[in-house]
Amino acid sequence: MSKRIRGVWCATLTPLDDKGRIDGTRFVSHVERLFAAGIDGVAPFGTTGEGQSFSLVERQAGLEALLEGGIDAQRIAPGTGCAAIQETIVLTRNAVERGCAGALVLPPFFFKGVDDEGVYASYARLVDDVADKRLQLYLYHIPQVTGVPIGHTVIERLLRAYPETIAGVKDSSGDLVHSLALLKRFPELHIFVGYEPHLPAALAAGGAGAICGLANLYPQALRRLHDARSDGQRDVELERIDALLKLLVPHSLMPAMKAILARLVGDPGWLAVREPLLPLTDWARGTLIKGLTSSGLPAPELAGALS
Amino acid sequence: MSKRIRGVWCATLTPLDDKGRIDGTRFVSHVERLFAAGIDGVAPFGTTGEGQSFSLVERQAGLEALLEGGIDAQRIAPGTGCAAIQETIVLTRNAVERGCAGALVLPPFFFKGVDDEGVYASYARLVDDVADKRLQLYLYHIPQVTGVPIGHTVIERLLRAYPETIAGVKDSSGDLVHSLALLKRFPELHIFVGYEPHLPAALAAGGAGAICGLANLYPQALRRLHDARSDGQRDVELERIDALLKLLVPHSLMPAMKAILARLVGDPGWLAVREPLLPLTDWARGTLIKGLTSSGLPAPELAGALS
Repeated sequence: MSKRIRGVWCATLTPLDDKGRIDGTRFVSHVERLFAAGIDGVAPFGTTGEGQSFSLVERQAGLEALLEGGIDAQRIAPGTGCAAIQETIVLTRNAVERGCAGALVLPPFFFKGVDDEGVYASYARLVDDVADKRLQLYLYHIPQVTGVPIGHTVIERLLRAYPETIAGVKDSSGDLVHSLALLKRFPELHIFVGYEPHLPAALAAGGAGAICGLANLYPQALRRLHDARSDGQRDVELERIDALLKLLVPHSLMPAMKAILARLVGDPGWLAVREPLLPLTDWARGTLIKGLTSSGLPAPELAGALS
Repeated sequence: MSKRIRGVWCATLTPLDDKGRIDGTRFVSHVERLFAAGIDGVAPFGTTGEGQSFSLVERQAGLEALLEGGIDAQRIAPGTGCAAIQETIVLTRNAVERGCAGALVLPPFFFKGVDDEGVYASYARLVDDVADKRLQLYLYHIPQVTGVPIGHTVIERLLRAYPETIAGVKDSSGDLVHSLALLKRFPELHIFVGYEPHLPAALAAGGAGAICGLANLYPQALRRLHDARSDGQRDVELERIDALLKLLVPHSLMPAMKAILARLVGDPGWLAVREPLLPLTDWARGTLIKGLTSSGLPAPELAGALS
């Protein structure tokens, strides 16, 4: 069985080649840069990684590219949830067999208003069918996108039925009150926040860390935020992150993050996204980059962020 | 190229065997019964058919079972939309190659708040990559579930770019005003309503028909509603349908429809649904069936509905 993950994990952006396919080489380089900058692990094919926009075959091949590129499977926890539970089973089983540290799993998300029984039954089916003691399952709660929350009752029942397998929750609700309630009620679980500014408060309450998107851009800043020993250090990082989030707000999030990354690493190939997302217009990108360089995030700091 | 579809199409429920897999034999019998009762065609793997709950492989095999069972491909328009556009392409191409009358395609539905450009780009990618003049594409608008509406601007641009391919819209918004606006603005398209009571008004305004779920249960009633020549005939059918809809409201829709169908055809196998849906509890099912037999829908009428 894998050790449960903790620390600063990056909800990895997915690079595409000039034909719009996942670019394995860029993917490996990106993860290597993140690790060199102090990131503990990567979670490809989450929401930030446009996971649902890639086919089952593409997601398997993308993971394979990372592993073949020499990325340690114990530092990978891929998103393996799909609308169809049979495909979730295939991807999750594959992640386990390839030695991944865990799997981040959305509930089936097409139908809205699914009740707790149905969410429980879906996860139970997954664990029963994968039937592998190595599986470490992280429940992926992002109700503002899925329309399907993972309630306390579901978690409690799952923990009772599969105490060794249910490892944690990625709470991407962006609601700190919700994260703290999870921490209080389920101290045995590894709870991760998705919204970067909540990391200090979650850690203070016993949280396991963050699985977050901004780590693609500012891995060192997230590392420092995680490791900060004083309120002063913490506040410096929180201010920078806050400034960045404010700049991102007017834009489509994934294309905007890719635009920043393209600029940071000097590789316009990073601009590409998969439909239904589209790259930012030149105008929007110009505004974003200009805001970035003229904000509290000076260009040299930016350029050095990934070094 | 297929002739554009019209009339009363059934958004087919998907039967499962006792291992929870799609049951090809039950599927074929069901469609044969529907055709014998006067239904013009079937649209498997839409929302009613729990389409998103089945894997790409299962959806292909399900269609194959219908074709091998002797169902005329020109009376099938499967739902082929997926969260990932590459999978939509695979399923749509398959439907075209197997001679289906059309394909009903959701926009990619994981991300919310996708703008018109992104929805357009997704459909354009689909048509460009399938690259087959035989494709007849029916845009599947069900924003209350997908969170991604298909706006007039998108339809207009698609029609301009692909006038031979964009065949119609299945409007499952349940909003008659929306359906009528589509009919007014796009008279060249075949517009179908999903909400049964709207069929007469839509037909009167030039609509092509309905692609609807209640046709699984009351195919003859839907046929009569479609063919009604007088207000009186129409009102009789509308009243029955209204009574049925009222009975369904308190329940999870697909499990409730399957419970009624199981009763009508005397086959409890129809009760099975795929996670995240669950069969109705015995209590709920009892209430539903009791309501049905004691309402304006007397048992003999029920029993005869599929004969």
